[in-house]
Amino acid sequence: MNKQIIFKKRPAGFPDESTWSIEQSSIPELKEGEVLVQHHYISLDPAMRGWMNANKSYIEPIAIDDVMRAGSIGKVIKSNKHPKYKVGDCLTGWGGVQQYVATDGTGWHKVDDSIAPMPLFISTLGMPGMTAYFGILEVGKLKEGDIVLVSGAAGAVGSVVGQIAKIKGCTVIGIAGGQEKCDYLVNELGFDAAIDYKSENIYAALKEKCPKGIDVYFDNVGGEILNAALAKLRMHARIVICGAISQYNTLENTKGPSNYLNLLVRRASMQGMVVMDYASNYGKAAQEMGMWIAQGKLKSKEDIYNGIENFQETFNRLFSGDKKGKLVLKVLEE
Amino acid sequence: MNKQIIFKKRPAGFPDESTWSIEQSSIPELKEGEVLVQHHYISLDPAMRGWMNANKSYIEPIAIDDVMRAGSIGKVIKSNKHPKYKVGDCLTGWGGVQQYVATDGTGWHKVDDSIAPMPLFISTLGMPGMTAYFGILEVGKLKEGDIVLVSGAAGAVGSVVGQIAKIKGCTVIGIAGGQEKCDYLVNELGFDAAIDYKSENIYAALKEKCPKGIDVYFDNVGGEILNAALAKLRMHARIVICGAISQYNTLENTKGPSNYLNLLVRRASMQGMVVMDYASNYGKAAQEMGMWIAQGKLKSKEDIYNGIENFQETFNRLFSGDKKGKLVLKVLEE
Repeated sequence: MNKQIIFKKRPAGFPDESTWSIEQSSIPELKEGEVLVQHHYISLDPAMRGWMNANKSYIEPIAIDDVMRAGSIGKVIKSNKHPKYKVGDCLTGWGGVQQYVATDGTGWHKVDDSIAPMPLFISTLGMPGMTAYFGILEVGKLKEGDIVLVSGAAGAVGSVVGQIAKIKGCTVIGIAGGQEKCDYLVNELGFDAAIDYKSENIYAALKEKCPKGIDVYFDNVGGEILNAALAKLRMHARIVICGAISQYNTLENTKGPSNYLNLLVRRASMQGMVVMDYASNYGKAAQEMGMWIAQGKLKSKEDIYNGIENFQETFNRLFSGDKKGKLVLKVLEE
Repeated sequence: MNKQIIFKKRPAGFPDESTWSIEQSSIPELKEGEVLVQHHYISLDPAMRGWMNANKSYIEPIAIDDVMRAGSIGKVIKSNKHPKYKVGDCLTGWGGVQQYVATDGTGWHKVDDSIAPMPLFISTLGMPGMTAYFGILEVGKLKEGDIVLVSGAAGAVGSVVGQIAKIKGCTVIGIAGGQEKCDYLVNELGFDAAIDYKSENIYAALKEKCPKGIDVYFDNVGGEILNAALAKLRMHARIVICGAISQYNTLENTKGPSNYLNLLVRRASMQGMVVMDYASNYGKAAQEMGMWIAQGKLKSKEDIYNGIENFQETFNRLFSGDKKGKLVLKVLEE
């Protein structure tokens, strides 16, 4: 049988027990030209919260009664004359939160799981890593010597953003929740400084830790932290709008950054990004990041939970911050 | 004697009688290398309100007891061995709200007032025109076929932005206050449509008049109109942050645009600008705009009031909207 997480009801604010149900269906039959992928791991990402809202954003909303949308990785266990993929191949794609999926391969690609553990391919070598890479280098137009501020800095995207900026010769300040994460940024990942937004006043902390201001702010959180960063921009600064995790579960309107006029004062820009736009260059980016990982310059951390039954509880860790690195759910039952 | 408007007190909200005083001083003596300029016209611009606040923005705040800062134009009536300028030359620069000013010429330049009336050189051929030109072409990265929305569209900057966009083959929608201004945009300036923000709901009006969305939004006003424009962005849209006249006199905090996450959804950018950054290219821009004016493609409208005594009343028209085109104060007493 195929255990699946079915999207039952659009949440107002945080998801709860009524948002999803866990159901069992039979393992899908294959049409000609399809493969059956047995999922090993599901990727849990903050963006999933946005897909649950009724309004179309950069992607269609998840339909009620559909399998919950998610990135995934697994192995081909059956093929019905697929022209490209065969049994044993490791594939990553948009399989959703379920144990098995039939696909003709559209939107999937093969990875070599002999060179790295599978979770890495949905982490630093997958969407979060690609988001970091293209976000900081292309949208953020990173230059050597820049002062870079990144929020959600201990997360899957932020931790890679900061490390890439260090590789490129920048000064990097990370914002994260809690002393443990802040210590991790500075001691393990080589950030120059960290700010604990849970215990520090963000305005005072930026004054102390970014005394010369900010050239690039990579924003994963929105809200008051974005507003504080706007107040500290240097001339011609760039803000990369990657996400706004502080706002995703708010029932009231999103909070707009009242300091946005500093964009004028500092001749700065604020630009949004969606990683899918860079799909044609994922290969090149993965190659470069793989090299950095091999050289020990880039560290990837996955926080892996077990059991599709624990999906909701694990999902909530995205927003409680109770996780270390990229959040992954193992759905393979061994 | 030299009548001067002296800045006496930083206003909270709208300026009032306590903000300025009118004083008389003697006409300044010239040092060697200086000229005496007799002002004919003073430029009144929304940016002047920002310069009155205590916090430094892109320029130093005006000091208390200084002459009120303003752009100006006038004629040299005396020279003490100035190397470049002679009596009769028409100069424009930062002379402030007064009738006479002594200068060594720094920041001033000579214009040929035989080819156009003087007010044009502080309007479409001056700062507001330069702001429009570089804002829409360089920051807005205008392309033929773009759908362009401009607020403050009947004003000195907005009216030129819209006309340049028409010259470049774009669809242009202007936002202005009142039916008369809206008629002027469509009937006189050739805009494709206009929205009267005083009588129309801005969200409904944008839905009706920009059904395909917006490629470039040139923002002079901020507040709810910026927020509504954010909701209508097309893919890769550009927002030019030129000003925020709706926010300049608010006592509470500036209102931040809560729809800013549409920058992400639409892969759009929002960039601030200050016209001074383009000073080295003013000449080229003035030449091109002068040509458009001569060809009848670009109309410039100045709303001229008379008498330095009427400075405060005239200044308030910037914010009441009770003006038609570029606001100018004649300070020459004939």
